[in-house]
Amino acid sequence: MTHEPASHLTLEPLFNPTSVAILGASENKGKIGYMQVKALLDGKFKGDIYPINPKSEMIEGLRCYSSLSEVSKQIDLAIFCVSANRVKSSLEECVRNKVKAAIIFASGFSEAGEEGIKEQQSICKIAKESGIRLIGPNCVGLVNTTNGLIGTFSAGLTNIPLNDQKSVGFVTQSGAFGVLTYIAAAQSGLSFNYFVSVGNEVETEFSDVIEYMIHDPKTSVISGYLEGEKNPGKLRQLAEQALTINKPIIILKTGRSSAGIRAAASHTGSLAGSDKIYDGFFKQTGIVRADDYEDIISFSKLFLTKKLPAGGNTVIVTSSGGRGINEADRCEAYGLKINPLKINVQEEIKRNIPPFASTSNPIDLTAAAAVSNPELYLEPLRVLVNDPDTDIIIFTEFPMRWKADDPLLKEFMDLCRNSSKFILITTFPLEGMSIPVSASELEKNGIPVIPGNLNPIRALAKLVEYSDKYRKAKQGTIQKVPEIKGEIELADLLLPGTKLSESQASDILNSYGIPTTTRAISTTEKEAIRYANEIGYPVVLKVDSPDILHKSEADAIRLNIKNELEVRNAFKEIIRNANNYNPNAEINGVSVQEMLPEGVEVIVGVTNDPVFGHVIMFGLGGIFVEIFQDISFRVAPLTKNDAFEMIEEIKSYKILKGARGKPLVDVDAIVDVLLKVSALVSDYGDYIDELDINPLIVYEKGIKAADAMLVVRDSVNQTTLVGG
Amino acid sequence: MTHEPASHLTLEPLFNPTSVAILGASENKGKIGYMQVKALLDGKFKGDIYPINPKSEMIEGLRCYSSLSEVSKQIDLAIFCVSANRVKSSLEECVRNKVKAAIIFASGFSEAGEEGIKEQQSICKIAKESGIRLIGPNCVGLVNTTNGLIGTFSAGLTNIPLNDQKSVGFVTQSGAFGVLTYIAAAQSGLSFNYFVSVGNEVETEFSDVIEYMIHDPKTSVISGYLEGEKNPGKLRQLAEQALTINKPIIILKTGRSSAGIRAAASHTGSLAGSDKIYDGFFKQTGIVRADDYEDIISFSKLFLTKKLPAGGNTVIVTSSGGRGINEADRCEAYGLKINPLKINVQEEIKRNIPPFASTSNPIDLTAAAAVSNPELYLEPLRVLVNDPDTDIIIFTEFPMRWKADDPLLKEFMDLCRNSSKFILITTFPLEGMSIPVSASELEKNGIPVIPGNLNPIRALAKLVEYSDKYRKAKQGTIQKVPEIKGEIELADLLLPGTKLSESQASDILNSYGIPTTTRAISTTEKEAIRYANEIGYPVVLKVDSPDILHKSEADAIRLNIKNELEVRNAFKEIIRNANNYNPNAEINGVSVQEMLPEGVEVIVGVTNDPVFGHVIMFGLGGIFVEIFQDISFRVAPLTKNDAFEMIEEIKSYKILKGARGKPLVDVDAIVDVLLKVSALVSDYGDYIDELDINPLIVYEKGIKAADAMLVVRDSVNQTTLVGG
Repeated sequence: MTHEPASHLTLEPLFNPTSVAILGASENKGKIGYMQVKALLDGKFKGDIYPINPKSEMIEGLRCYSSLSEVSKQIDLAIFCVSANRVKSSLEECVRNKVKAAIIFASGFSEAGEEGIKEQQSICKIAKESGIRLIGPNCVGLVNTTNGLIGTFSAGLTNIPLNDQKSVGFVTQSGAFGVLTYIAAAQSGLSFNYFVSVGNEVETEFSDVIEYMIHDPKTSVISGYLEGEKNPGKLRQLAEQALTINKPIIILKTGRSSAGIRAAASHTGSLAGSDKIYDGFFKQTGIVRADDYEDIISFSKLFLTKKLPAGGNTVIVTSSGGRGINEADRCEAYGLKINPLKINVQEEIKRNIPPFASTSNPIDLTAAAAVSNPELYLEPLRVLVNDPDTDIIIFTEFPMRWKADDPLLKEFMDLCRNSSKFILITTFPLEGMSIPVSASELEKNGIPVIPGNLNPIRALAKLVEYSDKYRKAKQGTIQKVPEIKGEIELADLLLPGTKLSESQASDILNSYGIPTTTRAISTTEKEAIRYANEIGYPVVLKVDSPDILHKSEADAIRLNIKNELEVRNAFKEIIRNANNYNPNAEINGVSVQEMLPEGVEVIVGVTNDPVFGHVIMFGLGGIFVEIFQDISFRVAPLTKNDAFEMIEEIKSYKILKGARGKPLVDVDAIVDVLLKVSALVSDYGDYIDELDINPLIVYEKGIKAADAMLVVRDSVNQTTLVGG
Repeated sequence: MTHEPASHLTLEPLFNPTSVAILGASENKGKIGYMQVKALLDGKFKGDIYPINPKSEMIEGLRCYSSLSEVSKQIDLAIFCVSANRVKSSLEECVRNKVKAAIIFASGFSEAGEEGIKEQQSICKIAKESGIRLIGPNCVGLVNTTNGLIGTFSAGLTNIPLNDQKSVGFVTQSGAFGVLTYIAAAQSGLSFNYFVSVGNEVETEFSDVIEYMIHDPKTSVISGYLEGEKNPGKLRQLAEQALTINKPIIILKTGRSSAGIRAAASHTGSLAGSDKIYDGFFKQTGIVRADDYEDIISFSKLFLTKKLPAGGNTVIVTSSGGRGINEADRCEAYGLKINPLKINVQEEIKRNIPPFASTSNPIDLTAAAAVSNPELYLEPLRVLVNDPDTDIIIFTEFPMRWKADDPLLKEFMDLCRNSSKFILITTFPLEGMSIPVSASELEKNGIPVIPGNLNPIRALAKLVEYSDKYRKAKQGTIQKVPEIKGEIELADLLLPGTKLSESQASDILNSYGIPTTTRAISTTEKEAIRYANEIGYPVVLKVDSPDILHKSEADAIRLNIKNELEVRNAFKEIIRNANNYNPNAEINGVSVQEMLPEGVEVIVGVTNDPVFGHVIMFGLGGIFVEIFQDISFRVAPLTKNDAFEMIEEIKSYKILKGARGKPLVDVDAIVDVLLKVSALVSDYGDYIDELDINPLIVYEKGIKAADAMLVVRDSVNQTTLVGG
């Protein structure tokens, strides 16, 4: 590779070019080559615009050039309004003329079969060798509303009225869905500063755009629509960086369902990791997961208030009992807490509101507030701003006719501004009846007004979670990945194609300090008896063979063996059954192990995900995993915080905490095993495909792996071998 | 009681009066007495209007009367625009003048403390004795849009443009939330035929209105907003009736959350059953549960197509890959199935669409369809109408500019009309850009067009469930409650205040044919040994005492006893521990029972719910109930179908079906026990407060109750005793 590593700085010519050339510019109003020129003019783009077309002299009053070389000035960005078959030659022309960046709309590449894939590969090669930054192909383009760079032909992105609130960046893997989200946001009073449709991501990828926006001072919130991330390692690092500087990343990741995964694969050609793993990855990195496009809009509006809720304790103020209850249901469904107010707080509020109004939570001011006495809305607020048990106050209605200079409105805003409470006004979504006249004044003062169709309560719950994660990051309670080293070099044991028996897998766990059962491999009955006597009864006997991973299925395991006679019989039966089960199996012998006392059985597993690489799974044993899918995932390597969170996340965590009168088990010991497994697969990632500790038995104090399985890769990643 | 039983017929004067008097009519435009007169005039009410006010002569051109008695004609309905303190005397005046029905807006009754409660009671008494039908007090009123009876002062219900689609009735326990829903529906092109705000339900209750609408030929869908049902028994019967005639009842029941339940209780003063029980009740009765107001609108629109989906197999047709995936996720989240299409179906579709379009499910026609070739939308439809594996076809976009006379639109509608497939068009919700110009033409042809903000896919999933329930009801597979009788009369055993030991509770189960363990009560060691020998080892010994319900806690139970010596020791220990645990306990002796072999442990329980009466619970034993709350409820009495459904509903049903290689257990035997328990609590409902069979052990063949607890009521319902 001859070019300098791509960085966010080299994306500047894409986002802030001083000059733009339009290849394939046209006078024909039906062609995108015309629409693109018009879009730049309508957008009042501040730089130079050079339409390129040998057949035209002028387009919309601009001089048209016959080729790039005819332009004497430096061209930062070329926008390709040409069809697929002309992309390659145009790109070569750009390189010759030292153009720094390009946007390619044309489709007909990797999404269109073999020919297209080849063509895309040559484009990729040109870009990598020349260092030119590319958006596309097969994309809708790039818009920077802060400088009028409307790099798109899409009508949806051009004739949309924008407002001043422009600090949310948006990057999308779907052009059409992205455009719809852009319009919906603009209609809700939120204009994105950047809109980037990455298309086939031939050069600039989803996470490159995120990187740019992290470094960009004009961006306060980074949002995106994602079908499949190509570089999760990079995205993880970026997310960590963004969290530290309190610049949230909110992503709508589709393909949750089996159908979605299928469709995503055929749509973008990118690999789609299991949705459960994406979920774990987002939790781990602090990326906010949007459930739908509304979350992007509402979350941004909430975040742009520059207040973070201190917690999830929410009080609802309503003038309709029914609406109050409905919103309370919604809050609790999304994880916000609606606790009853303390009696003294209730009494303070009661003093100045009608006697039939309710002061429990929701506070129901009754129709009196809505119809005749809007000043009632101030009463609970005056009290709640000083209530230490309240983090969030939600008004489910608001006086529609308070004008910007109304003294009551001013007092309302003063109370809100001087309070650390997070305050939200949400209204029932009706055409022409859901936005109070004072809405923009309120929003300027940090009080968002969001109608219910944008689901602000779901977004608020996400903001509470984000705030918590941000505070932890700030306080440093989200630690770095701990340094854990194995005792011995394992590369030779894990050579590609190697098969490991349970005992060998356990040895590897031991070398990373993971406690396993005391054990010894016997090859004769006599030896088995000797080991059993040394270990102490009761013992367990199991076949030890790299070819028999499912020992129960082979009937080659015997538990709770109490004496020499039983050892002798068990040994015979195990050898016989193992031979019957798989006559070709290589059998190391019979493993004699201590019989572990009862404890809580958990599972720690590792899979090698095509998107995320090594992913660690945790869950309780047996039916919890199988029936309830009560498991959690995190991408390796784990921090201590990751390990704790993945344990706390499962529902059956209650059992670990000591449900049904049983004592609390040693959660720290589970964390320890998770971190050691993480270290093992990080150190030997190129060698390990799967790992299963099942069961891992946890006690009030201590932990032991009762069984282990480790699958070595068939072949090792070439580049990594070269690098290492 | 002197009056005839209230029935839906006596509600006619409320819904279809020929003459209306307005008590407290006013010339003052700021008063509701004026607004009400105006509303009737604006609504073009077809009957006679009599404003009543001794101080006025004319109001809005109508002659004003000094009192009801001055009106010579029969008055069907009186609307009370008077304050709370004048309600009682006005009602008495109505009774004297043989007015048949009244609407009372005034608040200040049961919701406003003791005085109000008393006042409400006297109103209730007058109504019951006279037979006058009342809506309210503390309500927004009643609107019948089919005859212009706008019986309300609420501005929200008056100046709203209505359309012709008027066959959805709506009844609400919240005035304000009801009005918002009414407006939202009208704005979405759906006008309710009836709007009834029942307020404090002093006489006409929520279910009475539902009963009226069931009998009303103008109503096709019955919808409602509910906080707490006062007469679930009646609602259950009505729901059964409605299901038989395919008139769906869809109810938004709020108060799901703990906060909601708290608020609901203080808001309506009605008893709120646990939300899980409401859920079970709705499933049992076929009432569709709305998650929010949008479901009422969307479900009604879907149902009014007069097509019922044959199943949940859904195909998505899109022109945006991203939007297709997002909607596929949504479908699966709500339980619709997005299966890949069969290869031959895909190939047939492929023939006439561009090669880069995708024919898996979602079918992605790409931007080509959206931008230039709208005829592409017909291609998959032509094929799918004949695909036996497709029940539902969802278009996530639709050509915006097809006019009513466009031949392509005509063909599209012909294909839909001639097909049994359920077809839905849903669009991304953007202001002014989400409704195709042909929308009303499409809806006339039974193809609903619903923007995404009304959540049509969630409503569609509910319609699939409803359709299934309706078909079962039609085919008679939802059986009647079976006739099961106990062998002996139990009334004497269950006298109020009686306490039962496990053995006595088991005897009662036996008398209804529920299998329990073989057992005998021993009072001496010798007797215990004799019984143990008769029953056969191993046996279980337990204390038998009505005062010790938690035998493990008392350490007064011994399992797996294998011989006479062990019996002797166990007997001694149990008696000693029981005496230590509760020195005052009445001890019948030590119960010697067969030791049941291992099986799957389930729980069958009964609680006496303040709203629903006896409610039966089912779940798997131990942690399944405690950690995962994996339980189901149905209200007694159960049909066989109820019993099956409550078993299938729990997640751990997989275990019963034979997860992890274990065999299927005897589900029929569980159904049998559930039905027998249902019969027992139905026959002796006045005597039983709680019942627990825990564990009930199920085998591959057969079932046995291993333990039982029955709590008798402290006092028996007086009226029932008198009646019985």
